[in-house]
Amino acid sequence: MRMTKGVEWAVHTLLNLAWLSDDEPVPTARLAAGHDLPAPYLHKQLQALVRAGLLESVPGARGGFRLARAPEAISLLDVVLAVDGDEPLFRCTEIRRCGSVGAACPDGSRAFALPCAVKTAMGRAEAAWREALATQSLADVRAETDAHAPSVASAVRRALGDG
Amino acid sequence: MRMTKGVEWAVHTLLNLAWLSDDEPVPTARLAAGHDLPAPYLHKQLQALVRAGLLESVPGARGGFRLARAPEAISLLDVVLAVDGDEPLFRCTEIRRCGSVGAACPDGSRAFALPCAVKTAMGRAEAAWREALATQSLADVRAETDAHAPSVASAVRRALGDG
Repeated sequence: MRMTKGVEWAVHTLLNLAWLSDDEPVPTARLAAGHDLPAPYLHKQLQALVRAGLLESVPGARGGFRLARAPEAISLLDVVLAVDGDEPLFRCTEIRRCGSVGAACPDGSRAFALPCAVKTAMGRAEAAWREALATQSLADVRAETDAHAPSVASAVRRALGDG
Repeated sequence: MRMTKGVEWAVHTLLNLAWLSDDEPVPTARLAAGHDLPAPYLHKQLQALVRAGLLESVPGARGGFRLARAPEAISLLDVVLAVDGDEPLFRCTEIRRCGSVGAACPDGSRAFALPCAVKTAMGRAEAAWREALATQSLADVRAETDAHAPSVASAVRRALGDG
């Protein structure tokens, strides 16, 4: 069980756009070259980020992608859900109702009226994960990088900026 | 991204053994029939639970599986790691070092001396998830089920007990 690598690509690409911050759209090819990523696959992730309202797509010869919101308003949860979808980590298939145990429950509908306690417990853990993702923004990750590796911001501008 | 269904099977099977609580080993076929699960696949999960020290395997004609520890000492994290392994939800492949951005970092080794802030942020969320799984035991899930659906415990004993 793990996130797709598209999540890693998307967060780093959004971060790079947050460092550029001059609002000029950046074409997919230049964003992909930024971390040596395959442009067609990255493009699919970027389109998913547009659908989720995190990026704007600007058409035309000087078009490309730019952030649709301030980095403070883009959480890691936004990115994970945009790229990997909103399915729960644990999917309950209600096996409690099946087989000899399910059949032995004399009051079937009452025994199963409340959500399965396994699902509930797994859901509590997933809620903690989502909460921790939701409370960390792109701006937070940018600030932590700036504090630990201050040369990265200018490197991004040199590598991906428009001139 | 989601857990394998083996996790659901494993938690419910461990729960059933926790309800039986008479220390008699239960054969795979009877455990599988408990929730109408495919016995060969369930058997693989049970073997993984034995390797993780959560179940004991008892050989012989009246053999089978029983809990190796008290339900209070088996956490949901123990079960998830036993079945799905210990890989992180987010795998950092260090793309920050690659491509035009990586090449533009003038002090390569210093810029990358500390862990990537994306990895660190994702790791915080995963730690919250693991902590919430680690602090919920099989005994907790059993108690919640007993409170919400008190007929389940005796149904499990009728369906899976030895007599």
